[in-house]
Amino acid sequence: MNSGFFITIDGGDGAGKSHQAAKLRDSLEAEGYSVFLCRDPGTTRLGEAVREILLNREEIPIAPQSEMLLFMAARAEMISENILPALEEGKIVIADRFLLSTLVYQGIAGGLALEEIMRVGEVAVQGRFPDLTILLDISAEAARLRLARPLDRIEKKGLEFHKKVESGYREALRFLAAAGRGGTVMIDADGSPDEIAALIRREVKARLPVLKSESR
Amino acid sequence: MNSGFFITIDGGDGAGKSHQAAKLRDSLEAEGYSVFLCRDPGTTRLGEAVREILLNREEIPIAPQSEMLLFMAARAEMISENILPALEEGKIVIADRFLLSTLVYQGIAGGLALEEIMRVGEVAVQGRFPDLTILLDISAEAARLRLARPLDRIEKKGLEFHKKVESGYREALRFLAAAGRGGTVMIDADGSPDEIAALIRREVKARLPVLKSESR
Repeated sequence: MNSGFFITIDGGDGAGKSHQAAKLRDSLEAEGYSVFLCRDPGTTRLGEAVREILLNREEIPIAPQSEMLLFMAARAEMISENILPALEEGKIVIADRFLLSTLVYQGIAGGLALEEIMRVGEVAVQGRFPDLTILLDISAEAARLRLARPLDRIEKKGLEFHKKVESGYREALRFLAAAGRGGTVMIDADGSPDEIAALIRREVKARLPVLKSESR
Repeated sequence: MNSGFFITIDGGDGAGKSHQAAKLRDSLEAEGYSVFLCRDPGTTRLGEAVREILLNREEIPIAPQSEMLLFMAARAEMISENILPALEEGKIVIADRFLLSTLVYQGIAGGLALEEIMRVGEVAVQGRFPDLTILLDISAEAARLRLARPLDRIEKKGLEFHKKVESGYREALRFLAAAGRGGTVMIDADGSPDEIAALIRREVKARLPVLKSESR
């Protein structure tokens, strides 16, 4: 019997991560699974306080190393307060963004070494890496069309930065796969939300082990 | 010609760190050195925002890993904004608390592995460890007598925690020395402030290289 299953959904801004994470939760719950959904950074009180500094306090200068460490601190709290206990209860955990985001934004686009980020990440997640990291792969133009809300500090970083993010996701996914830190899958996210949801569901169902919570 | 000299003054609450750091700055400046004095966490705007969460937002739960990562984020910003540029100019940098505090509070007293903290620390300081870590060694009773101000979140952690902090400082200093991360020295801090200042000055002067800033 396995202790839960840990899925993260990642991808650039406008890829539909939050929407797809909620849809995946709904469909898994409809099949009787217990699901815990969280967003990174956020979810915990510490995570929300850190998120506020990271995304909305634009008057505060933040170096790439400190930015990475703040994301990791929010992540560590969520792992400790929510994710590890939920997995222990046999739940499926779905995180909206996780380590892959840091590898892309602070690593490939921000200039930090990916190995360095993983060394800190290993401490932050207490060695419990996701079982499956899903990359929603979307073209930059499609993403910009979908993003209708006001931009936060990181989204405002400019075209050059976002081109690196865009091309960086596939590279970071390959890095994660090569590092042996859980399963990875890339999903074409240029289709309709329902098409994307069906693709995600199929990939997840193919990998789900028998969970403790199913036996309830 | 060396690029600056990086000193950190550490020790339990009430050991007189801030007072001694200021006295050391004054005496070095009186001899013509350029000195940059900082406190950790703090100094930068990010550091102050993180310090506020760490020490005064007692309603926010913080796991040991997240606490460590937040201290490291504040430290990384200070290294990036202040310490590396000051050292590059040939200045003497004096930090009131630094890595040794994290090794003691989140490591020995908080339960995290010291090696894990050092792995994160190496990223946070961008490989630039202090040239000299000074431990002000004080008995717990003497420290409590000296502490007259209201206690912050970490100071309130209780007797058991603070006994571990007290005995942990010497162990952490030995760990740092064995890790080859810069010079270390322990100074008996039960004497009068002037006596302690004289001891610190002697240890610092014995180790100071010829600095760029002296040739001005």
